[in-house]
Amino acid sequence: METQGLDKVILKEKFSQIQDHWNPRIVGELNGQQVKLAKFLGPFDWHHHEHEDEFFMVIKGEFELHLRDKVVTLRPGEFMIVPRGVEHKPVANVEAEVLMFEPASTVNTGNLEHSDRTRKDLERL
Amino acid sequence: METQGLDKVILKEKFSQIQDHWNPRIVGELNGQQVKLAKFLGPFDWHHHEHEDEFFMVIKGEFELHLRDKVVTLRPGEFMIVPRGVEHKPVANVEAEVLMFEPASTVNTGNLEHSDRTRKDLERL
Repeated sequence: METQGLDKVILKEKFSQIQDHWNPRIVGELNGQQVKLAKFLGPFDWHHHEHEDEFFMVIKGEFELHLRDKVVTLRPGEFMIVPRGVEHKPVANVEAEVLMFEPASTVNTGNLEHSDRTRKDLERL
Repeated sequence: METQGLDKVILKEKFSQIQDHWNPRIVGELNGQQVKLAKFLGPFDWHHHEHEDEFFMVIKGEFELHLRDKVVTLRPGEFMIVPRGVEHKPVANVEAEVLMFEPASTVNTGNLEHSDRTRKDLERL
């Protein structure tokens, strides 16, 4: 089996190539899932995903994951899984570098398919 | 949608509950995939997975991922995806804390289903 193209991903290098916010980049694919990186800053929109659970892990900075009945602050070395159907709104009071795992089909704004923030055809870094 | 049981996972707390090596624990599930944590120390066995791609990210320490034609050293903030079919052998010269992401069906020793190192019915932390 050819392993020539295989190499590790250094998160710091990838994040240095991201200058904007709320615009996920694909940095890996496995088993129909994607590994994405994004920088968060400010409040995002309330949304949910009908069919996809989402994994958020903070690499640098921190952000609040607002749910309808509580707020969870995620810091480096912490992750949270938001199950399908659960409304959530990420809010980053400082810039956060975030790693996400989710199905290749997941759109960042979930049920808000045509928000200004909606990003499809994501760039690969 | 009920969010009462939802909370973040603090990796440091989970790793503090793991005293042994090469024995993955499940710390999250999403989209048919599992998030697992394990401590690595010493050499593991050569193996591959027929149907599953594997994601390894180092949280603390470092380890070498030996492939048949190269060795990739993974350090904190770095990850690597090993595609299905690719033979690999993790070697940790120091203790490494590792986060894995893989299908719920993945067995740690892959094609070596009955190795001394094989772990099924993983504990949940």
